[in-house]
Amino acid sequence: MNARSSTKRDLLTFDDLTAQEIRHLFQRTTQLKRNRAAGRDVATLQGRTLGMIFEKPSTRTRVSFETGMFQLGGQALFLSSQDIQLGRGEEVSDSARVLSRFVDIIMVRTFAHKKVETMAEYATVPVINGLSDDFHPCQVLADLFTYEEHRGPIGGHKVAWIGDGNNMANSWMQAAAKLGFDLVLACPANYEPDAKLLGHTQLEAASTGGSITVVRAPAEAVAHADLVCTDTWTSMGQEAERQRRLRAFADYCVDEALMRQAKDEALFMHCLPAHRGEEVSAGVLDGPQSVIWDEAENRLHIQKAVLEWLMGVDIH
Amino acid sequence: MNARSSTKRDLLTFDDLTAQEIRHLFQRTTQLKRNRAAGRDVATLQGRTLGMIFEKPSTRTRVSFETGMFQLGGQALFLSSQDIQLGRGEEVSDSARVLSRFVDIIMVRTFAHKKVETMAEYATVPVINGLSDDFHPCQVLADLFTYEEHRGPIGGHKVAWIGDGNNMANSWMQAAAKLGFDLVLACPANYEPDAKLLGHTQLEAASTGGSITVVRAPAEAVAHADLVCTDTWTSMGQEAERQRRLRAFADYCVDEALMRQAKDEALFMHCLPAHRGEEVSAGVLDGPQSVIWDEAENRLHIQKAVLEWLMGVDIH
Amino acid sequence: MNARSSTKRDLLTFDDLTAQEIRHLFQRTTQLKRNRAAGRDVATLQGRTLGMIFEKPSTRTRVSFETGMFQLGGQALFLSSQDIQLGRGEEVSDSARVLSRFVDIIMVRTFAHKKVETMAEYATVPVINGLSDDFHPCQVLADLFTYEEHRGPIGGHKVAWIGDGNNMANSWMQAAAKLGFDLVLACPANYEPDAKLLGHTQLEAASTGGSITVVRAPAEAVAHADLVCTDTWTSMGQEAERQRRLRAFADYCVDEALMRQAKDEALFMHCLPAHRGEEVSAGVLDGPQSVIWDEAENRLHIQKAVLEWLMGVDIH
Repeated sequence: MNARSSTKRDLLTFDDLTAQEIRHLFQRTTQLKRNRAAGRDVATLQGRTLGMIFEKPSTRTRVSFETGMFQLGGQALFLSSQDIQLGRGEEVSDSARVLSRFVDIIMVRTFAHKKVETMAEYATVPVINGLSDDFHPCQVLADLFTYEEHRGPIGGHKVAWIGDGNNMANSWMQAAAKLGFDLVLACPANYEPDAKLLGHTQLEAASTGGSITVVRAPAEAVAHADLVCTDTWTSMGQEAERQRRLRAFADYCVDEALMRQAKDEALFMHCLPAHRGEEVSAGVLDGPQSVIWDEAENRLHIQKAVLEWLMGVDIH
Repeated sequence: MNARSSTKRDLLTFDDLTAQEIRHLFQRTTQLKRNRAAGRDVATLQGRTLGMIFEKPSTRTRVSFETGMFQLGGQALFLSSQDIQLGRGEEVSDSARVLSRFVDIIMVRTFAHKKVETMAEYATVPVINGLSDDFHPCQVLADLFTYEEHRGPIGGHKVAWIGDGNNMANSWMQAAAKLGFDLVLACPANYEPDAKLLGHTQLEAASTGGSITVVRAPAEAVAHADLVCTDTWTSMGQEAERQRRLRAFADYCVDEALMRQAKDEALFMHCLPAHRGEEVSAGVLDGPQSVIWDEAENRLHIQKAVLEWLMGVDIH
Repeated sequence: MNARSSTKRDLLTFDDLTAQEIRHLFQRTTQLKRNRAAGRDVATLQGRTLGMIFEKPSTRTRVSFETGMFQLGGQALFLSSQDIQLGRGEEVSDSARVLSRFVDIIMVRTFAHKKVETMAEYATVPVINGLSDDFHPCQVLADLFTYEEHRGPIGGHKVAWIGDGNNMANSWMQAAAKLGFDLVLACPANYEPDAKLLGHTQLEAASTGGSITVVRAPAEAVAHADLVCTDTWTSMGQEAERQRRLRAFADYCVDEALMRQAKDEALFMHCLPAHRGEEVSAGVLDGPQSVIWDEAENRLHIQKAVLEWLMGVDIH
């Protein structure tokens, strides 16, 4: 129970991870996935509770965290925006301090990234960003793991991000800087990723053998790529902008013609839910290059590794 | 963990069960109920997760499944229509495939039966119908078990269904065909069960020694019956029709006078929630022939047997 | 499993507890808290399910009960007002009887205290009041325990309650009567505690060495107090009265000047959520006399003791 080291760790963005720690997480993920397949789960989180705050609903994040805690002997508490609203009725800092007295680790899925940061600042237990407006580290960790599971180390390879310069794009940029691969993002005007983050991650990438480039044309991004990723054009909370977004992204559909520009063995990823005929054609989403179901499943396994790591479980 | 046979089984309607399988389920239910009473639950579902999708809320279904999984060492995830809406935002087939990567079995409680069928088609794990507009197999299994617990084998006996030719009536018709008992349904005009299903089940009943008859007069259905069943006149989602339904069902209240037409030892059942003074009198619902609380409790035990069976747990 | 004694016990108010039972609960709470800190939880509630009904949302009550059950090997089911509405669609007495067939103990958090009483009357399993309009025994038990943890036995000491004569005030009055301490409540006109309950508890206090007094001036209540407590001025469901309440309670803020009237070693408590600058100043709430986080945490430990006690777990 008291294995937690004196210095609390959180996972808000890839900035909370070193390349070596990512490698360790991937090794452990492989082992956890094998344990599960063999029916040999080990109860490393026995007696531990994960408090999950969902200001924004999500089936995938919810089910993967809740199932993951259970498979390792712990439990997850699901707190929806009906149950708790951070900053309404109670200051986020107070909620952080109270929850820290009850649970062993906290996961927050919300809109403003600032709320996740405030939770982490005041909580005395580790905090995981389960998605904010700015970053989605758990999904990109799962995507990276899925790539390496199928193709080996991602370092030096080329990843194309097609579409919105959103939270997923931001986390991919941080990942490219950390692990040293070439990321080319093709974004329409006004939907490029944050310029300041782009600058920072480009600088960091220079020292790890990676690169980050923003282009306009999808074909340019996809050319010779080893992995092509996209995401929905209208995320939760953006419904009012839907018509404007449909127009802006009209040329950014990942279809068979676009995929042919990538390497023959290129993989396709999408963090789901997908909209066939919008950001991706049915042929690509359901085709042989698509690894979307593995990508979803790997959320479960990588998050189990993250939970163990943040709670300081010694797995040896 | 990998005990599941290569051929996945589901429970959407009684068509998914043979008479022999129902007998095996009842035997196992008896044992599970005894284990519980003796404080000797066995963790046959250790490490397994049931994903429960509730597009239509239900206390009884929820509590019985969630408690049942826990008592056998597993866990149940509760996904309400706030958390997941099948077919909105994501195609049902995609939700089925994603959930199959996280959980070991799925329960769906929804409106359109088609959604349950689509879940079962695309899920690679077993799917249970926890109630649809057309069928309610879990409740009728609990009712049949409750009858036999009190009175012995139901084959050759007479069951009266009074009121709406709804999903419960449909499942009773399938059960009569499967187990060979005489079912007489008394329904007002325009509330008879589906003609096609009636035809099919009548044919099947002919080969098992049962019979299925639809009449207009409650007294005719109840005459010499061993079991009298009814259900609320206005199910969830039908509130707009309430006044029309109150008029249509006015003569279909199961009261003491009606129960006197049945055998002296006849039982009364109602799957709850009940409305005293509408479909049943307080005297009957709370009287000595009523087994409604046993009926509710047996949901817990029969569903545990169903869960074990569908997940291929070898209990020997 | 069957350890429950033939006479079912409930915890609706302090009237369900003797002073000796409170002492035993506190001893057990100390032990449970120590077990947790040492990583030595014992699964005394293995296989048991707590059904929690929340007609009024609450993070603290929910998380503390759900985590508590899990830490002792059991599980808690969270039923919100979306899932179950007591007395709507089904009579409370029917819900009580059905739930008793599924779960081992029930917690109800609602508005009308009468609903909690009806649940307890018809349920065949123990019922805990997790907060009603009239009483909040779990919170006051946690507060008493917290006081004694910091300062030793409360008997003969002085407690000041500042503000609303609400459910918390009522439970404090019952506690003063039971444990024999001096409670002075400072309430504005029209917000005094219920006169009948005041009369009863004053009589009982007379026989235990305690006293209960209602005054107008906060300074009078706080003078030489060992403990100063307050609560939000506008509880859930009272939002419409907010402006009127802000005016009525304007002179009842617990600030540094008021705290200086109490003993130097006086503690400050608030059951949270708190509103800095309304019922309490930031300086007091976040100051050295405040034990609000311990108070919150102790909900977890005392409720575990309550759960064990009500389910008749023999801990020796």
